[in-house]
Amino acid sequence: MERQDKDLAWMLQFENIAWYEKGAVRILDRRVYPIEVRKVECRSHQAVAQAIKDMVTQSAGPYVAAAMGMALAAYECRGRSESEQIEYLTAAADTISHARPTTSKRMENVTDACLETAREALAAGSSDVSEAIRECAVEMNNVRYARIGRTGRFLAELFPSHGAVMTQCFGETIVGMMLREARLQDKDIKIFCPETRPYFQGSRLTASVAYDMGFDVTVITDNMPAAVMKNEGIDVFTSAADVISGDGYVVNKVGTYQIAIAAKYHDVPYYVTGSPDTGHPTIDSVHIEMREPSFVLQAMGTPTANQKVKGYYPAFDITPPELVSGVVTDQGVFSPYRLAEYSVDKTGFLV
Amino acid sequence: MERQDKDLAWMLQFENIAWYEKGAVRILDRRVYPIEVRKVECRSHQAVAQAIKDMVTQSAGPYVAAAMGMALAAYECRGRSESEQIEYLTAAADTISHARPTTSKRMENVTDACLETAREALAAGSSDVSEAIRECAVEMNNVRYARIGRTGRFLAELFPSHGAVMTQCFGETIVGMMLREARLQDKDIKIFCPETRPYFQGSRLTASVAYDMGFDVTVITDNMPAAVMKNEGIDVFTSAADVISGDGYVVNKVGTYQIAIAAKYHDVPYYVTGSPDTGHPTIDSVHIEMREPSFVLQAMGTPTANQKVKGYYPAFDITPPELVSGVVTDQGVFSPYRLAEYSVDKTGFLV
Repeated sequence: MERQDKDLAWMLQFENIAWYEKGAVRILDRRVYPIEVRKVECRSHQAVAQAIKDMVTQSAGPYVAAAMGMALAAYECRGRSESEQIEYLTAAADTISHARPTTSKRMENVTDACLETAREALAAGSSDVSEAIRECAVEMNNVRYARIGRTGRFLAELFPSHGAVMTQCFGETIVGMMLREARLQDKDIKIFCPETRPYFQGSRLTASVAYDMGFDVTVITDNMPAAVMKNEGIDVFTSAADVISGDGYVVNKVGTYQIAIAAKYHDVPYYVTGSPDTGHPTIDSVHIEMREPSFVLQAMGTPTANQKVKGYYPAFDITPPELVSGVVTDQGVFSPYRLAEYSVDKTGFLV
Repeated sequence: MERQDKDLAWMLQFENIAWYEKGAVRILDRRVYPIEVRKVECRSHQAVAQAIKDMVTQSAGPYVAAAMGMALAAYECRGRSESEQIEYLTAAADTISHARPTTSKRMENVTDACLETAREALAAGSSDVSEAIRECAVEMNNVRYARIGRTGRFLAELFPSHGAVMTQCFGETIVGMMLREARLQDKDIKIFCPETRPYFQGSRLTASVAYDMGFDVTVITDNMPAAVMKNEGIDVFTSAADVISGDGYVVNKVGTYQIAIAAKYHDVPYYVTGSPDTGHPTIDSVHIEMREPSFVLQAMGTPTANQKVKGYYPAFDITPPELVSGVVTDQGVFSPYRLAEYSVDKTGFLV
């Protein structure tokens, strides 16, 4: 139990990714973590939206930041009339939820819940609903932890007693929960983390989480997953997802698709964690963000190429259901072709 | 004709990768090129072997450096008796050819040719055979250019009239020759270069070669090849090889295997350039070097991970013949399963 509690305490502390207090939202800057531990202070809800857009936080971070940004927006319009506050918060919800186009549908679930809380608190006579929204954000996060804990348990049940698991990109809560559950289930698991260029989330973040939790962690470059599967033997490839469409396509950090192809070639199962996105019944409605091309011409700020050549930087790629062995959710493991069997509710964050 | 000559002049100048003169071999340091243009000066043949081991030069560079290192060794033992010089040069050949285990068989072809030249010059009464060995090195290089020029022509013939070609790692001469031949054949080709971590040979070197020759070049990170094949349409994937075994396996910079798997999945042909290695009739005799693991925990000298995690760094990976659409040689294109049809000679460098 001691080890278990320590894991969770660490995760909760680490995951204090965005917090509203006294007219500001402070967001842990994952672009520099763990080399530096620094927070970005946002003094307006627009600044929160910009921080989300600038990828100050990633994975589940933007959803927490979005809710905290709504608390800040409520603070900004405190004391105005009920209808003015609703109007202000509705506009803020629009700004925040559209900070990153790929995830805006899911963001709206979060901002909608905050708006609903605001409506109730205003109707009850409150003139400053920022605290109510923060409480809503914390509650949504608690629901998220419970859901992801169940997801982590189902995922760890798919691991062998002794073996190796390859991750992709970050997925902080699910990585923590997965490792905690693996330990509870007495599974002796080594972790291989591709570095995930160009931001190095895999080497900087995923590897740090696993190392801090006491696991055997190996970082590899993004051209090595197939060679590692061949030479070292990988038992499971797993990733979180930014979107899982209702028809079983996985939208995740660029590189996921390539590793999934390599996994299929080596008969390694690929399990994605998350749940089907009600905003995207099919993959056709997903828009893949293109990011600043020149960002791939540097590494940690140092130029890596003649700066006159072109770059190309899709934030995500799409893995088709034929490469997905299972979608691991809080309700169990589903075939990507049978996601309609997942019972949707909209009360909490999704992984 | 003018464009053609300019290309070749550029390539010859660029490829002045290692040169023996007055008791020293100067090697262009490709670990920092093109950000810096710097030469490593070697004052002993052991220093040349160390530079080869330290990957100061890559691709065909080590073979040129090896021959120039033999010239330096001859300078070191000049004036001694014929048998003493032969003994000294034989030991030097052993040191130089074993600098990198994966390519030592092919290196021996080079050092053997240098030794043969030395024997002839000593028998003819010379007391300093360093110039004779340098001439032998230049002649081997000229033979190499002619062979690679033919290889480039056969490769470019496999390109569509308009299309996109994905490369892997460096392969300087063949990249230059391939592009020159593509232009001579009026093929309108865009080049996509994966960056090739951890040394960034693709972004630093391959992309620079293609850009300097006036082509449309896009650099991508190593997790993007599959996404680029899917989104942008790649017509051909091509790479050089450190070893092509007689049974059709390709040993090349780590990452080649993964891209070849992605290419197969997208029905993109993979053409490897080179020729079967007489030292490796089957893949079983190939030893894959493991390099310093911590090197994958940094990028351009900046740490990218908690330095306490493990790294993993195989220099090469192995692509099986089932993923190879054709082996493009100076004699034409061969099936990887029918390499016995290639007529082996040992007079020159191999790609």
